Amino acid sequence: MDPAPVFVVLSYIGLFVFAVSGALTALRNDMDIFGVAMIGLVTGVGGGTIRDVLLGSFPVWWIADPLAIAICAAGAAVAVVAQPAIASRLKALIWADAAGLAVFAIIGAQAALAAGAPALIAVFMGAVTATFGGVLRDVLCNETPLILREEIYATAALIGAGVYAGLLAAGLATGPAAIAAALATFAIRAAAILFDIRSPKVGRPRGPGA
Amino acid sequence: MDPAPVFVVLSYIGLFVFAVSGALTALRNDMDIFGVAMIGLVTGVGGGTIRDVLLGSFPVWWIADPLAIAICAAGAAVAVVAQPAIASRLKALIWADAAGLAVFAIIGAQAALAAGAPALIAVFMGAVTATFGGVLRDVLCNETPLILREEIYATAALIGAGVYAGLLAAGLATGPAAIAAALATFAIRAAAILFDIRSPKVGRPRGPGA
Amino acid sequence: MDPAPVFVVLSYIGLFVFAVSGALTALRNDMDIFGVAMIGLVTGVGGGTIRDVLLGSFPVWWIADPLAIAICAAGAAVAVVAQPAIASRLKALIWADAAGLAVFAIIGAQAALAAGAPALIAVFMGAVTATFGGVLRDVLCNETPLILREEIYATAALIGAGVYAGLLAAGLATGPAAIAAALATFAIRAAAILFDIRSPKVGRPRGPGA
Repeated sequence: MDPAPVFVVLSYIGLFVFAVSGALTALRNDMDIFGVAMIGLVTGVGGGTIRDVLLGSFPVWWIADPLAIAICAAGAAVAVVAQPAIASRLKALIWADAAGLAVFAIIGAQAALAAGAPALIAVFMGAVTATFGGVLRDVLCNETPLILREEIYATAALIGAGVYAGLLAAGLATGPAAIAAALATFAIRAAAILFDIRSPKVGRPRGPGA
Repeated sequence: MDPAPVFVVLSYIGLFVFAVSGALTALRNDMDIFGVAMIGLVTGVGGGTIRDVLLGSFPVWWIADPLAIAICAAGAAVAVVAQPAIASRLKALIWADAAGLAVFAIIGAQAALAAGAPALIAVFMGAVTATFGGVLRDVLCNETPLILREEIYATAALIGAGVYAGLLAAGLATGPAAIAAALATFAIRAAAILFDIRSPKVGRPRGPGA
Repeated sequence: MDPAPVFVVLSYIGLFVFAVSGALTALRNDMDIFGVAMIGLVTGVGGGTIRDVLLGSFPVWWIADPLAIAICAAGAAVAVVAQPAIASRLKALIWADAAGLAVFAIIGAQAALAAGAPALIAVFMGAVTATFGGVLRDVLCNETPLILREEIYATAALIGAGVYAGLLAAGLATGPAAIAAALATFAIRAAAILFDIRSPKVGRPRGPGA
């Protein structure tokens, strides 16, 4: 464990950005102030919470980290105040979100390995940590989870966590492996954003009139 | 812990009322008998279950308390039988639900403090205990969670749990603090019901034509 | 515990079939490849996961069983490849699903008893194990959970788990009790399929014009 300090800072940035995205979704769904704050919090801490529950790491991580909750609350507050401005700054949000995705994927894999999970499970837990906050957000807002439908998002987290596990298996130290894998995750996500790459859909092909 | 006996009785009343509200929602969604019983149970025990999972208190509280399950089953059965009558007695249900909210908020905060959580987390766990049964109810019935959208409900639980933590910090004994805080929660919720107060919505303002 | 080998095989068949059903639902909802794999996995392992969390058995069962994840992935892959064929073979799927339901109900009750839960809770955990993968599938696909609305499905699991607990209480050994109870579950579900029996709906009766 013991990630580099830059990683700690990045993880709080990720938390903040996820909370903003959650609060924006709640605002779009016409929720009241408590709902906005709650969805912001759940989006920020939800992925790591599900990971901790599955691995049996209790109490879940943010119980002992009030700073995490404060950051989520700040993210929700910023979303409320800056709502009109954010629409025009959606680009910045997307890039910050990509950074959060990259950091959360590696942190999640790290936490799973530290809890003794095999590498395959750790890779999966990386993706869970990075994406299930968003899944909870969409379930609570009664929308079909976005990350299950669109874009190279969860896939980037999976690959990044896999790179991390692979580098560790190849003998790299935790610090450099984490940084390299996070950069790889970010690069994949960035490529998907820049070139509008999407995961293949595999549903039945539709005729021209469909 | 060791709440006053009046508290134990009130908590079972809260459980019963929450089960009734869950079963009524399931009936409205055209579920079969198993679905009605299941949603009644989940609505009753769900908030405390999520609290226990987050805090790492296992097994979750109702595993060792068949009476809780029996009370939820009774609530669901009453909802089925009394369905036509309940519509005209909605007022009684709303007041009983307010009592359940007040008791569950304090019980939840108590349980979190007993599990060693810091005060801020305990206040949050009070609100989770009081409201997440309803959130699960609405998610399972494929509705946007009511408590995230409407009325001073979760807010009352948050304030009540905060009052409880504050009174303890001020040196009050558990029993009187719990009773005072539950009354405060109930009073806030009662005021919201009587004067139709709602939490502020913070979504973008809509023009006259929206 | 220590179920008969035939039981282990049947449980993997159940896992596979549940993963196929999850993947088919995800395909119908136009999800991408990651979404299809994820919903397949969640449908397969979800019921047992919720059971383990409620009972406090950590880490949850599939963390140490990569074969389970591989089987779910295989189920999702088969669903994608065989999608056109499956529609015409829906019948085979329904019967395999009934076998999965029967095995999961008994495994779930076994696991709960092994964790020290009282018999009533164990019966309930049998139904949770057999049906909550499907509940999670429907919640994630933003549909009202099927098993809460239709057919003798969860009811068969409840009865089967109850038969299992009853046979054990009557002094039968684990092996024969499990096999008899699984057969009973399957028979009830089979009867429901063959004769189109449904659980009673208890919603308010509708007039002719409703």
